[in-house]
Amino acid sequence: MPNREKHDRMANAIRFLAADAVQAANSGHPGMPMGMADVATVLFGKVLKFDPTDPHWPDRDRFILSAGHGSMLIYSLLYLTGYEGMSLDDIKNFRQLGSKTPGHPEYGHTVGVETTTGPLGQGLANSVGFALAERMLAAQFGGDLVDHHTYVIAGDGCLMEGISEEAIELAGRQKLNKLIVLWDDNHITIDGSTALSVATDQLARFEASGWNATRVDGHDPDAILAALERAKTSDKPTLIACRTTIGFGAPTKQGTNGVHGAPLGADELAAARTALGWEYPAFEVPTDVLDAWRLAGLRSRQAHKSWSERLKAADHELRGEFERRVRGELPSKFAEVNAAIVTRAHADKNPVATRKSSETVLEALTAALPEMVGGSADLTHSNNTKTKATSVYVEPPKYDGRYINYGIREHGMAAAMNGIALHGGFIPYAGTFLVFSDYCRPSIRLAALMGIRVVYVFTHDSIGVGEDGPTHQPVEQIAALRAIPNLTVFRPCDTVETAEAWKLALEHKTGPTVLALTRQNLPLMRTDPNTRCLTAKGAYEIVPASDNAQVSLFASGSEVSLCAAARDILEAEGIPTRVVSVPSFELFANQPEESRRQVVGTAPVKVAVEAAIRQGWDAVVGSDAAFVGMTGFGASGPAGKVFAHFGITAENVAATAKSRLKKS
Amino acid sequence: MPNREKHDRMANAIRFLAADAVQAANSGHPGMPMGMADVATVLFGKVLKFDPTDPHWPDRDRFILSAGHGSMLIYSLLYLTGYEGMSLDDIKNFRQLGSKTPGHPEYGHTVGVETTTGPLGQGLANSVGFALAERMLAAQFGGDLVDHHTYVIAGDGCLMEGISEEAIELAGRQKLNKLIVLWDDNHITIDGSTALSVATDQLARFEASGWNATRVDGHDPDAILAALERAKTSDKPTLIACRTTIGFGAPTKQGTNGVHGAPLGADELAAARTALGWEYPAFEVPTDVLDAWRLAGLRSRQAHKSWSERLKAADHELRGEFERRVRGELPSKFAEVNAAIVTRAHADKNPVATRKSSETVLEALTAALPEMVGGSADLTHSNNTKTKATSVYVEPPKYDGRYINYGIREHGMAAAMNGIALHGGFIPYAGTFLVFSDYCRPSIRLAALMGIRVVYVFTHDSIGVGEDGPTHQPVEQIAALRAIPNLTVFRPCDTVETAEAWKLALEHKTGPTVLALTRQNLPLMRTDPNTRCLTAKGAYEIVPASDNAQVSLFASGSEVSLCAAARDILEAEGIPTRVVSVPSFELFANQPEESRRQVVGTAPVKVAVEAAIRQGWDAVVGSDAAFVGMTGFGASGPAGKVFAHFGITAENVAATAKSRLKKS
Repeated sequence: MPNREKHDRMANAIRFLAADAVQAANSGHPGMPMGMADVATVLFGKVLKFDPTDPHWPDRDRFILSAGHGSMLIYSLLYLTGYEGMSLDDIKNFRQLGSKTPGHPEYGHTVGVETTTGPLGQGLANSVGFALAERMLAAQFGGDLVDHHTYVIAGDGCLMEGISEEAIELAGRQKLNKLIVLWDDNHITIDGSTALSVATDQLARFEASGWNATRVDGHDPDAILAALERAKTSDKPTLIACRTTIGFGAPTKQGTNGVHGAPLGADELAAARTALGWEYPAFEVPTDVLDAWRLAGLRSRQAHKSWSERLKAADHELRGEFERRVRGELPSKFAEVNAAIVTRAHADKNPVATRKSSETVLEALTAALPEMVGGSADLTHSNNTKTKATSVYVEPPKYDGRYINYGIREHGMAAAMNGIALHGGFIPYAGTFLVFSDYCRPSIRLAALMGIRVVYVFTHDSIGVGEDGPTHQPVEQIAALRAIPNLTVFRPCDTVETAEAWKLALEHKTGPTVLALTRQNLPLMRTDPNTRCLTAKGAYEIVPASDNAQVSLFASGSEVSLCAAARDILEAEGIPTRVVSVPSFELFANQPEESRRQVVGTAPVKVAVEAAIRQGWDAVVGSDAAFVGMTGFGASGPAGKVFAHFGITAENVAATAKSRLKKS
Repeated sequence: MPNREKHDRMANAIRFLAADAVQAANSGHPGMPMGMADVATVLFGKVLKFDPTDPHWPDRDRFILSAGHGSMLIYSLLYLTGYEGMSLDDIKNFRQLGSKTPGHPEYGHTVGVETTTGPLGQGLANSVGFALAERMLAAQFGGDLVDHHTYVIAGDGCLMEGISEEAIELAGRQKLNKLIVLWDDNHITIDGSTALSVATDQLARFEASGWNATRVDGHDPDAILAALERAKTSDKPTLIACRTTIGFGAPTKQGTNGVHGAPLGADELAAARTALGWEYPAFEVPTDVLDAWRLAGLRSRQAHKSWSERLKAADHELRGEFERRVRGELPSKFAEVNAAIVTRAHADKNPVATRKSSETVLEALTAALPEMVGGSADLTHSNNTKTKATSVYVEPPKYDGRYINYGIREHGMAAAMNGIALHGGFIPYAGTFLVFSDYCRPSIRLAALMGIRVVYVFTHDSIGVGEDGPTHQPVEQIAALRAIPNLTVFRPCDTVETAEAWKLALEHKTGPTVLALTRQNLPLMRTDPNTRCLTAKGAYEIVPASDNAQVSLFASGSEVSLCAAARDILEAEGIPTRVVSVPSFELFANQPEESRRQVVGTAPVKVAVEAAIRQGWDAVVGSDAAFVGMTGFGASGPAGKVFAHFGITAENVAATAKSRLKKS
């Protein structure tokens, strides 16, 4: 069989699996898989280094389908190349509840899917993290063990989302020459021609940020292969604009938005079979084509074997450490390191901002954990994220640093962190102001959905920001973050809780963690020398009442010490009052009901205090509790005056409790 | 006095007002105002069309300080040019609680501030809306009444934020040649040199999207003026890269990140006075300089007068309509139009998705309200935002359409909507999927903070999305939006509530509104012919119990009809059950306590139902109520099966109520 015919038949197998699956589900996106089938066939058939028998091989090339709506493209490829986790039945169950083939590719759900995509631009921005992680890991373990590429298929939507620019600029600045983006340049978006909304010269745009950019006929396998081979030898990241026809092969609908997100329909699908000479019934892949694809799946077997031999031959200690890093296990000395950190935290009695507490903790953690890679969205000395151990920047040509200058790009930063974590070998942490968590929320959500370990250091966590005013004062962000499923949010009250929160964040392998930290100094609250990790309970009594409590005060972060002061006022007036610290709603919710009941207690008056909106607190303290906090946006002024202005003071907390006591 | 000396003294007045104010506040950002003082002096002194005696003159040029941390630049300019709302005392009170001079410029708080800035990139993205609004209003009312420019000062942070790319591409596609961006190209960010994080050729980047781009010495007034004059004659939007020295004049700190966000310190400030030959004490502006600035403030008086004469001479009806539009008042026929819409909604008994209900309502509204300008982030036929009246696209050269192809740029869209609303003359509404509200959250927050009228049409509002799966199924977004102060969120249950929500959104001039709408069909619930706007109450009994209610069911949107079905089950088993529709938490919270108590009722069992997380519901129904909804992310599958999978069914609601009844 001539090469071109073989190629066409392999590509058509993708086209019809995709179109048939969408037709059967009566839902989905046939246009992209049909349009990009030629590109994907060249990539998976001739270029990509992968081994379907070992989808987690650490040195595999990474393939990221940023245009996640074209999920049938990757599902087809996984089936055709012989991944065990993807059968023809799975393809037939496309978009059915519980299937391996959900509407958009989901990491952790379907083997061979490197990252969850669908929200546009995210995969492209993840890829920068993947490619950075590859360079960083190679710098630490050598090119014998780490030497692979990151390939992305991106659509017009990915390039229109602002996050793409952040990703492109980061990749350009970092000269990530092993990052290769294949843009499905089909001139069509959901609403019609791309000309309706775009007049950008994408090649010039990428070149402006230090990329190679080239254009190929996306239906010419030789041209695609040549472009990919050239890209692999480049000293810059590469964009390959693949001019394609969306829905290639669907006679009346191809090249239109009618084929983007709806089934072809039985007639058009039959007509496409005729047009492309595909005489097989739905879901049938003829033996010659399946064989060809399965052979393609074996293509990297020798490379994998050689790699395994190199790993085996490597220095014993290096190999052990590499394997530990890839497994994502903390070093065995972690417990000891953490114990020392916590002991030191208990000993430091000076008032200190929790962002500074975090820095102190990070100094010890980053010294002990080479997998930690830090960064900030250009607020390094506000977020206190840089330590001695991470003082060298990650940058070309060596990439041997541990601190990433993400620039003023919160969204790109969070998405890159996802990519770094997904690649493996690293625990990324990075900072910005809490209020700007809004800028990176879509990527935080995906980290939570994927269940990956990244740590956000969100400082300046309340109106305590002071003079910068309401644009910079978070009010609703803590509630909004607590709303994201599988995201753990800590708002520690002092150095000890900060140390405990960091420990819990690093040990938590199945989800991201937020640390919300203060700008302003806070006193040490955990003066009890007991070093048990109380933060793990989510909430606990931090100051007992002198007698049967009449009042329970609940607070997080900076308001815990404020409540302790309110307790002193109340106790002085003969009202026994206890204070409960609530560093994490999520961990508290996971406690047994009886424990929760004990922590909430039986005092007739409950007051929750947080310099933020109430939303979410009712689940902890009940809707009958009083609340002292914010009901609207903040104001610009010195922090103390702003707190007083909004009534978030010990005096007001005490007065609120007393007024409740009278009524009860 | 030679021109250059006069210029220098005028610029130095800005520099020292800024530096003195920051020094007095012991907080703030002197570097940018000192660096951009020359550019600002040329712009305000020679180019900008404005009248300090009438800050709301509709045909003024708009000036947007996208780099909002340099707030002292605009405060200085407002004072120097003679705005009544800005005195020297206001300058002295920089960053003090309650002052007119908060840390970042706040629209509505300080006269002369066109938009609230500080979160980077937002002002630049707003400016696209301002410039679009100018073209659209000119298309509708003629160049005699509407002919002005939009000038932006943006910093490196603005250009790094992804939203900037969305804005640049939109402006380029729309050929907004009256948009002129002055980039403070000072090579410095908070963390140090821009080279740490950027390797992008910004001029090439802007040119790739259809902009003019040019570079000037930002301290050469002649070059700045020449560049501005050239930009004004361009047929494209223009970027002027102004190469400046941050903190210009501070002898040891200028050109470093040390001068970005901290006071100069007394010694450096004194040394700057010496270096620039500024011999006046803090906050003193010598008479010659103040006179020169006040004269500059009078520069556009004649233009203003001519404009007023043209308005006066205009066709009576045109003038009346122009003035109505600028005031933002709805047309007098609005009540009648709305009444007809609501009556029709009551009459349409067919099950219909609320996104489709919204389209029907929009057909009538957009036909009656020429100020409504629609759009979508490339989901027009999913969001149902395009109507007959808005079927013509807004685009060059005529801009006479009423529908904006925002592209797949949710963030840029929301920011542009802010700009359109702030410019005046329009009510922007636009759509995307609810889950992607996360992408535009920072701009939504600013709309809420500014208190401006924009309407978000967020469709596909739950797991009802079905096959697209968890990446596209909102779960926490409703709670997260409800968390934003001054944002009204509606989740209507049928066509009637959708019509009512639209009415309330349009009448609400002091804040943005979200409509969360279904993909799937819903039955008409408001079968009662009473056309009172019950949605205005936020919550109300929509189905009464047959007898003294044993169970109260509370729901929003698609779960209201589900609760009605659950009620039928319970009533059939002899359990009197009522259903309360809760279209808006915010409006309900604003009701008098007694009304709220009545709506909540006294049934021993309360069950709240929403296909979303519980967070926020406790404030409506109390933490003792049961809840049927989501606790984690969704799943891909047909919508009905997904609802069943997560137990959001009439049967489960009924069972939950019964199980509670047994316990009570």
